[in-house]
Amino acid sequence: MQALKERIQREGTILGNGILKVDGFINHQVDPELMDECGAEFARRFANVGATRILTAEISGIAPALMTARHMGLPVVYARKSKPITMPDQVYLTIAPSHTKGRMVELIVSPEYLGSGEKVLVIDDFLATGATILGLVRLAHAAGAELVGIGTLIEKTFEGGRDVLRPLEVPIESLVRITALDAGHIEFAAD
Amino acid sequence: MQALKERIQREGTILGNGILKVDGFINHQVDPELMDECGAEFARRFANVGATRILTAEISGIAPALMTARHMGLPVVYARKSKPITMPDQVYLTIAPSHTKGRMVELIVSPEYLGSGEKVLVIDDFLATGATILGLVRLAHAAGAELVGIGTLIEKTFEGGRDVLRPLEVPIESLVRITALDAGHIEFAAD
Repeated sequence: MQALKERIQREGTILGNGILKVDGFINHQVDPELMDECGAEFARRFANVGATRILTAEISGIAPALMTARHMGLPVVYARKSKPITMPDQVYLTIAPSHTKGRMVELIVSPEYLGSGEKVLVIDDFLATGATILGLVRLAHAAGAELVGIGTLIEKTFEGGRDVLRPLEVPIESLVRITALDAGHIEFAAD
Repeated sequence: MQALKERIQREGTILGNGILKVDGFINHQVDPELMDECGAEFARRFANVGATRILTAEISGIAPALMTARHMGLPVVYARKSKPITMPDQVYLTIAPSHTKGRMVELIVSPEYLGSGEKVLVIDDFLATGATILGLVRLAHAAGAELVGIGTLIEKTFEGGRDVLRPLEVPIESLVRITALDAGHIEFAAD
């Protein structure tokens, strides 16, 4: 998606170790108009997968998932990383490594909002190793729900996440694909 | 706001200790259409305060703040509760008690996205004791920014937050005000 790509070119910062900082418009400060455009684009790409619910992980997945949900007219569930007191004792829980936190985090969803028969579209900010997204997929499967698609704002193709997710046999859509982050230069995949 | 009030009447659950569970449409699963309506309403109520930036706290503040930001055409910054590796070493940090976590949490904002001269509108999901919102206000003041308004989806008037915030001398708007949560019954303020 051209608007997101240009914004990354203009404001994205490479921090080393394959970390792309997009805190100015996605991860700490959010540009609502850009997120809304991204949501509209996901809604267009996943118009025919029959999704009944969108699933994401707190925190950075919430903005793109919410805007996608708005355009698709669907509820969005965000997996929590710690169990709030409002959640029932019996939950779906898995663990996944966090890229930016450098440790394992829990991903928790209440059975109240994810059940069998649901068709789940997973939306997140980054597709890197695919570990967080696989965690969300495990939660969906634990609930007896069906995965129907995976959408991410930014894919770092050099981290191999797409290969990890391919066996799931669902459409995987990334709005921008980055093939290398080297020496202060961001290299984009040709679209 | 009638739509939010009706949703709380229909789906809100009282958990005791003054906790109102709204996980089905705000805090775990989010109804994007309802959040969008709430955002439009905040935009209407704060149309004339001259806000240049919206500030909220992760996690539950993100959805209403993002939708408000969309309707006002402003960027939104969410204070982080742990410092990601993408954040600079020098940050604004304060601590505030978390109602639903039962402990103190950090609230952290990068100086990159909150500076002097900004006019900050704080948006959050709940106004209870006002402690989280006061924490956000401290961050804004530390950055040299000016607070111009406070908006929350749901105010629990019996926890006294409005009295705590009144000395700030800015407009405080809650879309729904709850005066009591007793014996399984939710009592709303007359509007």
